[in-house]
Amino acid sequence: MSPDFHWDTLARNTAARLKRGASHANGKVVAAENIAALLHAVIESGDRVCVEGNNQKHADFLATALSKMDANLVHDLHIIQSNLALAAHLDVFERGVASRLDFCYSGDQGVRLARLIKAGKINVGAIHTYLELYGRYFMDLTPRVSLIAAQSADANGNLYTGPNTEDTPAVAEGTAFKNGIIIAQVNEIVDTVPRVDVPGDWVSYVVQAPKPHYIEPIFTRDPAQITETQILMAMMVIKGLYAPYGVTRLNHGIGFDTAAIELILPTYAESLGLRGKICNYMTVNPCPTLIPAIESGFVKGIHCAGSELGMEEYVRARPDVFFNGPDGSMRSNRVFCQIAGHYSDLFIGSTLQVDTQGNSSTATLNRITGFGGAPNFGSESRARRHVSYPWLKAGQEAAQATGATMPRGRKLVVQMVESFREKMSPTFTEKLDAWQLMEDLSLELPPVMVYGDDVTQIVTEEGIAHLHKCSNPQEREQAVRGVAGFTAVGLKRDQRVVDNLRDRGVIQRPEDIGVDVSLATRDLLAAKSMKDLVRWSGNLYQPPNRFRNW
Amino acid sequence: MSPDFHWDTLARNTAARLKRGASHANGKVVAAENIAALLHAVIESGDRVCVEGNNQKHADFLATALSKMDANLVHDLHIIQSNLALAAHLDVFERGVASRLDFCYSGDQGVRLARLIKAGKINVGAIHTYLELYGRYFMDLTPRVSLIAAQSADANGNLYTGPNTEDTPAVAEGTAFKNGIIIAQVNEIVDTVPRVDVPGDWVSYVVQAPKPHYIEPIFTRDPAQITETQILMAMMVIKGLYAPYGVTRLNHGIGFDTAAIELILPTYAESLGLRGKICNYMTVNPCPTLIPAIESGFVKGIHCAGSELGMEEYVRARPDVFFNGPDGSMRSNRVFCQIAGHYSDLFIGSTLQVDTQGNSSTATLNRITGFGGAPNFGSESRARRHVSYPWLKAGQEAAQATGATMPRGRKLVVQMVESFREKMSPTFTEKLDAWQLMEDLSLELPPVMVYGDDVTQIVTEEGIAHLHKCSNPQEREQAVRGVAGFTAVGLKRDQRVVDNLRDRGVIQRPEDIGVDVSLATRDLLAAKSMKDLVRWSGNLYQPPNRFRNW
Repeated sequence: MSPDFHWDTLARNTAARLKRGASHANGKVVAAENIAALLHAVIESGDRVCVEGNNQKHADFLATALSKMDANLVHDLHIIQSNLALAAHLDVFERGVASRLDFCYSGDQGVRLARLIKAGKINVGAIHTYLELYGRYFMDLTPRVSLIAAQSADANGNLYTGPNTEDTPAVAEGTAFKNGIIIAQVNEIVDTVPRVDVPGDWVSYVVQAPKPHYIEPIFTRDPAQITETQILMAMMVIKGLYAPYGVTRLNHGIGFDTAAIELILPTYAESLGLRGKICNYMTVNPCPTLIPAIESGFVKGIHCAGSELGMEEYVRARPDVFFNGPDGSMRSNRVFCQIAGHYSDLFIGSTLQVDTQGNSSTATLNRITGFGGAPNFGSESRARRHVSYPWLKAGQEAAQATGATMPRGRKLVVQMVESFREKMSPTFTEKLDAWQLMEDLSLELPPVMVYGDDVTQIVTEEGIAHLHKCSNPQEREQAVRGVAGFTAVGLKRDQRVVDNLRDRGVIQRPEDIGVDVSLATRDLLAAKSMKDLVRWSGNLYQPPNRFRNW
Repeated sequence: MSPDFHWDTLARNTAARLKRGASHANGKVVAAENIAALLHAVIESGDRVCVEGNNQKHADFLATALSKMDANLVHDLHIIQSNLALAAHLDVFERGVASRLDFCYSGDQGVRLARLIKAGKINVGAIHTYLELYGRYFMDLTPRVSLIAAQSADANGNLYTGPNTEDTPAVAEGTAFKNGIIIAQVNEIVDTVPRVDVPGDWVSYVVQAPKPHYIEPIFTRDPAQITETQILMAMMVIKGLYAPYGVTRLNHGIGFDTAAIELILPTYAESLGLRGKICNYMTVNPCPTLIPAIESGFVKGIHCAGSELGMEEYVRARPDVFFNGPDGSMRSNRVFCQIAGHYSDLFIGSTLQVDTQGNSSTATLNRITGFGGAPNFGSESRARRHVSYPWLKAGQEAAQATGATMPRGRKLVVQMVESFREKMSPTFTEKLDAWQLMEDLSLELPPVMVYGDDVTQIVTEEGIAHLHKCSNPQEREQAVRGVAGFTAVGLKRDQRVVDNLRDRGVIQRPEDIGVDVSLATRDLLAAKSMKDLVRWSGNLYQPPNRFRNW
């Protein structure tokens, strides 16, 4: 290296930025009306900027301020952000402030995102799962500036997140320890925070936003909308999977299908004598539909990636079950929840499309939604070494089918789908839309959510297909067709092969596992409405208004 | 639930313990001489206790105090601990204070551990990799009491770890947020900590230990011991793997083999014009043998799981490269380093035994060592979705070999071994000792470190075997035999098949990739001794005494 080479360019550059920022702040505290001036003082063109967009909590005030920056002064920002959920998250590109994007999930913004990509306004680096994007914060995508959100702060910058901690610790650590700048929007500035979620010496600035940060209740499902088909499938999952495998540690995806399982634990699973034998530990957000199972003593421990609006007081009153802090409120943490869930014994979730090898995707044409956490929960954990009964049993079954000589466990990855979705659109397809999407958007790979070779079972209203018990792709195809109902994929089954698979237990119909279809009625639901959930919670659960009809 | 059911049993029990503990503490501060009384006040029989035993840093004072507890009063503790490294970690079982163990790695204590298991003194739950044990802290193995170690604390319990943060944040979060009790031993109690690594409101007690906490320099390798065979293999790795795959993000295991790679980056890789094109980002501890590569501008960023004794001042002076805090010293974090490394593009490490399918293990008879982080770095990351050139290329090659129809990337997992180890013991074997160990210790599975189907390449002095390019187990076997040299495994090769594999590029000899064997001398090492490393560092690196011979 030449003698005038420096090893502290980031530190010196940061010092210069903080010096420019000082005139717009009172110590670390910035007035809301000064936020534009502060951002222009501390953000430089080309910066990698992490906008805290979690699954639920959003730094909406800061995201809006960022999107309104003067693109003549600051441009070509590289946004590295978990979730794109707000208009401002794309305005920043449309207005020319940012040009490059690495992200995890876009949800409702997926259509506009695809349009902006096609228009050349956004250059997408890659779509990630949560943990891999966090991992890159500590490798090649370290944030230069992070805009985060918390419940409260003190004048020293100590942050309190309350139950919606989510991504904050990962973002803050990746930024603070590479001389990055952290600006936190908070709902209130207080003398002393109830507990410290992010230490003040990691944080550069705090600003009290005019309104509390945006938060989205994405894990709430109204029991009134659960169908008898979903209840039948839930019975099959409990009797045909949770019971024989003895699944005590698991992760539930979002949706009415898994909500149905949760709501028949206190009734159907109880009648089978399964309390204490299944579903003891879950890694999942505090879904309101879990309340009856918790109150009935089914679920002993839950670690959460985020919180859920309205569940705050219920969670606070159940510290034996949730991970609550010394202040009494929960600390969620997406990193640890994703890790725990990855190494648990079972993931079950729904999807939009499944092909004949069991590959599944939520990608639909002209829309980029991304993956979130499902690929991590829903994939074989090959780094796992600790043994449990379900993991060993599934591994032995898989080895028996393929003739593998090295014994190894296997995670149970279950896809739970009805053969037809809304508007009689078939779930099963010969080819995923993801292939067309790859073409349209010039992606290197089709955006598959859960790969077929990671899936152990598909559960439909017609039965369970144990894909890990198939010896080859041909058998696997017939196992999928064999539970695909009256879809075109299902009708193309080879009935003789399917009958043979059923004889071998690769396909199981409800009657094969002793599930009485006539019991699959809404009477089995421990709670049939939002009001029932409130009642089960002893009035601690306070649903958001849009879920109240009383 | 019955009306007198409680949901805060942990919180009430903790309050009772803290009340008992209060008389042995001054606020949160405990005098060293009161530690036995404190432990007897706050630990109860049957507790799950996490003793902070990291890869390097150890809560040795607290571990010793725990092992000396009165087993008549407190017994049947369940120890959940990453690393067993000190005699006290096993004394606690020998003395009957603890009876159950879940852990990751035992190293030098492996022989005694196996003996205590056979004697019925220790009931082992499971052996884990780091991330899965941390994951279980948030699921079914949450600590009731954690004994941790830090550099300093203030009277409010705020902890400063300095560069050896390691597991502390994971242990502290898992404990503090389930009403657990955290006792921290620190080297000093100060008015104000240089930065906050663990917030004080998470911590129950701090005690200044009579001596600074134990710390082990496990990543230091003396360049003087690197052999010409290792240099030849290192050349093959750079020219045959890093260059063609364009590997910019990677993880190096511990050992002289990977140290050789690091030490020829500034010479050999530089001569190939590879600076800036390979090894830009690493997830690895601050190995002293990386100094010349850093100084030469090869490695731009390094995130560390832990620190390394003697590297503190060098790391402090290179904030552009390492993750240093506002106080100037590094914050290591095993969780984020393991996550980043799992999703990087390549892992390369050594091992003790490799079988004919490429399965490898460091387990040897009568010794339980465990896995540490290698299975996580050295396994296919099936939850990964972001695309990079090396990942895509390896995936395409694998799909071509197996005829897979769903395109997917592939992590490069490389095992770098000489065909014979010390004392002419062959590295390659028809059957791993792990199988015998399974029998002897009644394990459910053989303790395999890296599974063959996760391995893409084996590099020996004879060449590179690209296992991911093999179409079936028979080819894979011959590819392994084809680089196994003069071991019995190597001699049993089918020469015609091996020649065919070489023609197809599945096996590559040094001359096939343009590696000039005559250049493989110690002249290629950028540093040939510890003193050279010190010189490269501008005297910032201060090797521990045992590595100094001047």
